[in-house]
Amino acid sequence: MTFLEQLNEWRTSHSILFGADTAPYCLDQRRRYQGRALAVARPNSTEQVQQLVRLCAEHQIAIVPQGGNTSLCGAATPLNDGQSIVISFERMTQIVQVDADNNTITVQAGVTLAQVQQAALAAKRLFPANWAAAQSCQIGGALATNAGGVNVLRYGNMRELTLGLEVVLADGELWEGLRGLRKDNTGYDLKQLFVGSEGTLGLITQAVLRLYPLPTAHATALVAVESPAAAVDLLRGLQAEVGDRVTSFELISAPCLDLLHQHFPRLPQPFQPIPAWCVLIELSDGGDSALLTDRLAEYLYAHGCMEAYVAQSPTEAADFWRLRESIPEAQRIDGVSIKHDISLPIGAVPDFLQKCDTEMLSSFAGARIVAFGHLGDGNLHYNLFLADKTAGVYALEPAVNDLVYRHVAAYNGSISAEHGIGQLKRATLQDARSDLELHMMRQIKATLDPLGLFNPGKVL
Amino acid sequence: MTFLEQLNEWRTSHSILFGADTAPYCLDQRRRYQGRALAVARPNSTEQVQQLVRLCAEHQIAIVPQGGNTSLCGAATPLNDGQSIVISFERMTQIVQVDADNNTITVQAGVTLAQVQQAALAAKRLFPANWAAAQSCQIGGALATNAGGVNVLRYGNMRELTLGLEVVLADGELWEGLRGLRKDNTGYDLKQLFVGSEGTLGLITQAVLRLYPLPTAHATALVAVESPAAAVDLLRGLQAEVGDRVTSFELISAPCLDLLHQHFPRLPQPFQPIPAWCVLIELSDGGDSALLTDRLAEYLYAHGCMEAYVAQSPTEAADFWRLRESIPEAQRIDGVSIKHDISLPIGAVPDFLQKCDTEMLSSFAGARIVAFGHLGDGNLHYNLFLADKTAGVYALEPAVNDLVYRHVAAYNGSISAEHGIGQLKRATLQDARSDLELHMMRQIKATLDPLGLFNPGKVL
Repeated sequence: MTFLEQLNEWRTSHSILFGADTAPYCLDQRRRYQGRALAVARPNSTEQVQQLVRLCAEHQIAIVPQGGNTSLCGAATPLNDGQSIVISFERMTQIVQVDADNNTITVQAGVTLAQVQQAALAAKRLFPANWAAAQSCQIGGALATNAGGVNVLRYGNMRELTLGLEVVLADGELWEGLRGLRKDNTGYDLKQLFVGSEGTLGLITQAVLRLYPLPTAHATALVAVESPAAAVDLLRGLQAEVGDRVTSFELISAPCLDLLHQHFPRLPQPFQPIPAWCVLIELSDGGDSALLTDRLAEYLYAHGCMEAYVAQSPTEAADFWRLRESIPEAQRIDGVSIKHDISLPIGAVPDFLQKCDTEMLSSFAGARIVAFGHLGDGNLHYNLFLADKTAGVYALEPAVNDLVYRHVAAYNGSISAEHGIGQLKRATLQDARSDLELHMMRQIKATLDPLGLFNPGKVL
Repeated sequence: MTFLEQLNEWRTSHSILFGADTAPYCLDQRRRYQGRALAVARPNSTEQVQQLVRLCAEHQIAIVPQGGNTSLCGAATPLNDGQSIVISFERMTQIVQVDADNNTITVQAGVTLAQVQQAALAAKRLFPANWAAAQSCQIGGALATNAGGVNVLRYGNMRELTLGLEVVLADGELWEGLRGLRKDNTGYDLKQLFVGSEGTLGLITQAVLRLYPLPTAHATALVAVESPAAAVDLLRGLQAEVGDRVTSFELISAPCLDLLHQHFPRLPQPFQPIPAWCVLIELSDGGDSALLTDRLAEYLYAHGCMEAYVAQSPTEAADFWRLRESIPEAQRIDGVSIKHDISLPIGAVPDFLQKCDTEMLSSFAGARIVAFGHLGDGNLHYNLFLADKTAGVYALEPAVNDLVYRHVAAYNGSISAEHGIGQLKRATLQDARSDLELHMMRQIKATLDPLGLFNPGKVL
């Protein structure tokens, strides 16, 4: 039987799509990558994934794993050579187990982040990972991307939240590493290879994730600060006072609030006028929100934060968060921008912004810098609007990237904090990591996927 | 020049020891492994480490890296073939940087855990890793072992506390991964390979470690519980009330307290009579110890913990901790025991103890089971005294291990939670991990250390 004949035979059992039906799986969320696929397979079990991988290995057909198709770097989109298949995990949606005594949840790869959060909540536990695509992104993709989000400051990335994995390897063999242990020093920690590998080393089919005690109290504030340096001081001062209750600490620049004002005029914005910088702070704890809110308000007052708005209700807190979370959409409405997802040592953020902004404004007349991000973990989304707000601006992307990444390198920072490499930053990675590092990565790739079946043209 | 001629030329610069001077480096801490070495080299820089590795690679001489020589599995002791050299990191003791804004510390491999804790404290930060050997163990060894300890429940193992590494590879090349970033998704996370690899993949020369806000309040209690199941309930109930303020939660069985009473009669023991089980609880937070202590006392009282001793002073808290920390020494004084460092899903601990104890007592007449450990992270130290309290008892070790590890496997647990594999569990690892896992590990070893120079006869 040929490859396509076998797929056709599996059409119903493995839910295989052909032709026009594959289209939604071949365009990335940012609409930058239009790929083509021989077919899209939607297995409903680990065993079906193994069957598909074995078939592809036999015929040397490449495989692009896809979760919620929310990659911001084209990591889940097939190349446009039409020589690969997409394996979508959308039918592997089982929550296998919530173990409240062990504080773990076991799920199949296609469960969405929001579903994991909900299942944890039902057991009075917290699954702390959270970001904008929570409703649509899937755990398999989140793990493959080592996704981050707004609570990394306190709880870590997906890597730190993972205890065990089940992975289909390149020969179709199954690595059963679905352990729920917090300490396990029996040889090399193989799961670490797959987390963050963007589907290039294996296909994650199940995971055991950490749960945490459920905070019952929240306090949220929007606080104007003089400068990014003042924001760093506020973060460390606040932590000295309330420790790890600081779960989010988001930096927002004036151009972000301007964009929100312009495109979402009904979103309540407390500041009048808009300050050069502000931070969105979230504390969480057990006990009572009113007490925690008072404590935050008192701290801000005592430390001279004169323009601080402390949310007085969950609704107001949600409004503050809506501001933060609407920034990417306000940007999108405004036009095409050149985006960067960078990270820096936290103390270097102020200096970076000062120096990079200066060179950017002198190099690209009329540039508007939209900077915001997770200051608490050193992650900045550093985006640029130039005169051309169409896709034509991408012609300038290499020059803009070069400038930004030079400054990132000067502080030993990262060109991809939480979005990964995918197709978008594949070329840039060659400069960002040393030859030795790239060589080591290629060696690992060759060891685990000698035929290069898994997600070719991504990362390396 | 021959290998030994070159070493002799480096005798002063690289602080090379020969003959009888190598003895202290050739015996492990538990005195179970007596090895022999061609020489012991004590480089004082990364460059000297590279020179030594290049020389060894050229002459195909094996290298055993050694930190504080506190391995409990013989991981840092050379084999007795006398064909390897030991590289000791004891002269690489520089604290390179404490970055309070970034909450990171950068240290050379030979810095002790206690020195890292001290340097963090001086910057009003916490380095949370802690265990009995803090004064003598070195960071390089702690990383290579992925060591755990008493605060893993709240802060994770050494792996989770590591942001960046500098590693000398098997060809003497230097991997410069000394980044201090909390988010960095630029390809495979290479540092994960070296953490927990017990010196078999590379030599860690420097590390960037995470620091945390410094807790100022502590509350400590010794609480009698009816059973391990009651201990798990208390842990989850307490976390629901005070969240992640629970930083340690240690389970202690009656035989431990008996041993302490017998061998350290002056150590104050509050319980009269000794209960079947008790837990040592530590909470930490910002603010004031008195308030936190009251809160803990009130919780224990309200939840029917009638035999609970809440420390009323730092001295009393230290006494409680001394009890816990003296258990291994009391055991040692009592004689030779057969030890296990296992981990289980936390909810499975009570069932495991019940079933494994029952079979142990029926299989080995007169066995005394000394069980204690970090219940909060599922890690038990499950030790056995049999009639023979000399090293002769090791003849029964395989049979005892077989029994224990069968029960561990039944709960998908781990045969080495925090001590690693080393020489001690090398044979056992073959049964504890699947053929596929062992194959993957061997592939990684062959990729990164093709000549097998690094720590042969350990782990794999």
